[in-house]
Amino acid sequence: MDRRVATTDMGKEILSRIDQLAALTETPGSLTRTYLTPCHREAANLVLGWMSAAGMDASVDPVGNVVGRYEGNRPGLPALILGSHLDTVRDAGKFDGMLGVIGAIACVDALNRAGERFDFAIEVVGFGDEEGVRFQSTLFGSRALAGTLEAAVLESRDADGVRLADALRAFGLDPARIDAAARRPEQVLAYVELHIEQGPVLEAEGLPVGVVTSIAGATRLDVRLKGEPGHAGTVPMAMRRDALAAAADAILAVERHCTATAGLVGTVGRIEALPGTVNVIPGDVRFSIDIRAEQDPLRHRAVEAVTNAIAAIGERRGVCPTVRKTHDAPSRVCAPWLMEQLAEAVRGEGLAVRRLPSGAGHDAMAMADLTDVGMLFVRCERGISHAPAESITAEDAGTAARVLLRFIRSFTPTQERS
Amino acid sequence: MDRRVATTDMGKEILSRIDQLAALTETPGSLTRTYLTPCHREAANLVLGWMSAAGMDASVDPVGNVVGRYEGNRPGLPALILGSHLDTVRDAGKFDGMLGVIGAIACVDALNRAGERFDFAIEVVGFGDEEGVRFQSTLFGSRALAGTLEAAVLESRDADGVRLADALRAFGLDPARIDAAARRPEQVLAYVELHIEQGPVLEAEGLPVGVVTSIAGATRLDVRLKGEPGHAGTVPMAMRRDALAAAADAILAVERHCTATAGLVGTVGRIEALPGTVNVIPGDVRFSIDIRAEQDPLRHRAVEAVTNAIAAIGERRGVCPTVRKTHDAPSRVCAPWLMEQLAEAVRGEGLAVRRLPSGAGHDAMAMADLTDVGMLFVRCERGISHAPAESITAEDAGTAARVLLRFIRSFTPTQERS
Repeated sequence: MDRRVATTDMGKEILSRIDQLAALTETPGSLTRTYLTPCHREAANLVLGWMSAAGMDASVDPVGNVVGRYEGNRPGLPALILGSHLDTVRDAGKFDGMLGVIGAIACVDALNRAGERFDFAIEVVGFGDEEGVRFQSTLFGSRALAGTLEAAVLESRDADGVRLADALRAFGLDPARIDAAARRPEQVLAYVELHIEQGPVLEAEGLPVGVVTSIAGATRLDVRLKGEPGHAGTVPMAMRRDALAAAADAILAVERHCTATAGLVGTVGRIEALPGTVNVIPGDVRFSIDIRAEQDPLRHRAVEAVTNAIAAIGERRGVCPTVRKTHDAPSRVCAPWLMEQLAEAVRGEGLAVRRLPSGAGHDAMAMADLTDVGMLFVRCERGISHAPAESITAEDAGTAARVLLRFIRSFTPTQERS
Repeated sequence: MDRRVATTDMGKEILSRIDQLAALTETPGSLTRTYLTPCHREAANLVLGWMSAAGMDASVDPVGNVVGRYEGNRPGLPALILGSHLDTVRDAGKFDGMLGVIGAIACVDALNRAGERFDFAIEVVGFGDEEGVRFQSTLFGSRALAGTLEAAVLESRDADGVRLADALRAFGLDPARIDAAARRPEQVLAYVELHIEQGPVLEAEGLPVGVVTSIAGATRLDVRLKGEPGHAGTVPMAMRRDALAAAADAILAVERHCTATAGLVGTVGRIEALPGTVNVIPGDVRFSIDIRAEQDPLRHRAVEAVTNAIAAIGERRGVCPTVRKTHDAPSRVCAPWLMEQLAEAVRGEGLAVRRLPSGAGHDAMAMADLTDVGMLFVRCERGISHAPAESITAEDAGTAARVLLRFIRSFTPTQERS
């Protein structure tokens, strides 16, 4: 069997498992699997089985992460942690998160079949909550492992009023024990995450994989513009304080600023105009702004510029703006030594090395508080993600797994943390 | 008692009745009263009582309009019809519609007390459905009187699936008899409607009333922009097909065009962006456009210009627009002879005559198919309408009623319809 066929076969096996996971959904007909639900339990059981079959000791940790451990040459060695998350957004694609867990299990399976062990252990983690859909608790699983959870989050409630603490109990876990999920830095050598790019760069450049340089920092703003509602037929244009026209100005200001400055992206994803009737001038509009950059100072300047632009629009239009910061996460840089070893593995598979930043957040962001992190991106179709059309090829999945396997086999822990 | 005190007393009585009507609501705590509901029945009964007390023969017509008739010097004379509507939008103000019915009853009451009769009859109509909230059947009551109803509208259903025909039956009416609500032109001399301005012009000019010149024509468009959804962090600005940024462009194009051309108003009142998540680029946006003008050709050119602008925006941004016309009503001109007699009554009360167009639609639009129409506007606070803050003063209500009373007393039917 030539290498290309073998790669595709490995990829097909990965995609078949991804399909099995995608069948476990809270919303028949589309994929939604949120933290601590019965579907999460079913997914965890499926993954536990695959981990065991790949020669790992597998169990669910105190916050619902699925953890498989493949010992090194002797038990108890510090571990290279691989993984990603098992939860999804609503109406999700099936590769975001799952690919990193299943791809890592495929690698360990290959090592186990070949009887290969190293001077380090390998752990594969399927984080229970990265998207934060149910409890607005983004990166809950990886924060627990990194030991950076804040206890207050246990009081978060889902849309039905269920507390996170009670959902943990219903899942068979003890909220008093969540600290036990945390690892000590000396137990961990690095965290490496395989993930779909969720963007169009690799596809545009014709490359199956890329090495992530950093995870962009992100700021989210909640903007409210209060104007004055009025009858669409009776208020002359010059006397209007139209909150939606003001919002349109603001949306274009975000776009203009982020287009003019390389390295920035800015998005208005959510908008609500009240009263929301065809014949009434909107008097009250709320919208979100999401601004990201690899360089934190660039992002801070953009947030300031956009906030100032909104103030000026409000002034000019007689509309009163309120801008509230709802999220602010600094950029996380991938460890140069891990980038280099990942790049070496990419080259080893005969591929060109493309380094690129991640505009999306990942479990690696939280894991960076515990250990050095690296990420390998896989090309996805048209950059679509967080949507049912999210797609990768079996060949690319296989290529990514081979790169990861080569990386593991050559993995050399650094003496000095970056 | 000086005239100002008398005017205010008349106004206070009108406002007291308006408060009594406003208490009849489907939504406790706010005012919503839609066609053929139990609340409509209660309102009709209240108004029937006031009409009878003012010396009118009062009854409910075959479509649920409340009609009171005050005979002239002999029975059966053609009638000057006064009135407005008794239904409301959701979370409504209490003056829109009701003022015109109660103000007209107050005038007839004054004539009845003084024993004054004329060479014409007076009818006061409280139309059952102008807003069209329940069945999307705008101007149903006045269309019935004008004889322009289309039978198909009987098949309209409300949000609970109830057919209009069945709602008529439940109200005690016979859907087979709705044609009997129609008047013959020779029975009617004119229709004159007292209404709050619903705009800020009279307030800005310090005038309590104004004479309406025409009711603006209106076009409503439903616009859909299909772009491509994408991850807010990963799709570079230059590769986006952001449907909400395109919509922002379109909203400002509507505003620009309608501001640049005197006599136009244009409003985007409703917008929905999907998927509507803070971290996803919107791929599918729908919004409404409402364009009005006193001059129909001006409106037609504006609709064309805005439609072209949206096509150009779609082209430039790689976003696919669909523009669907959902409503198109021509402008209705008030009869010059009625405008002149109304203006004379305004002058008679010692007030300056301000002529102004109506940007809002009114029962007079439908009545114009039957007879000549005129309208008298009353100043309202900050131009607010279709909202609980809708407000007029007792003094202005009294002034408006006095102008209407003076108009009736001097009313001289034209020999020739305009």
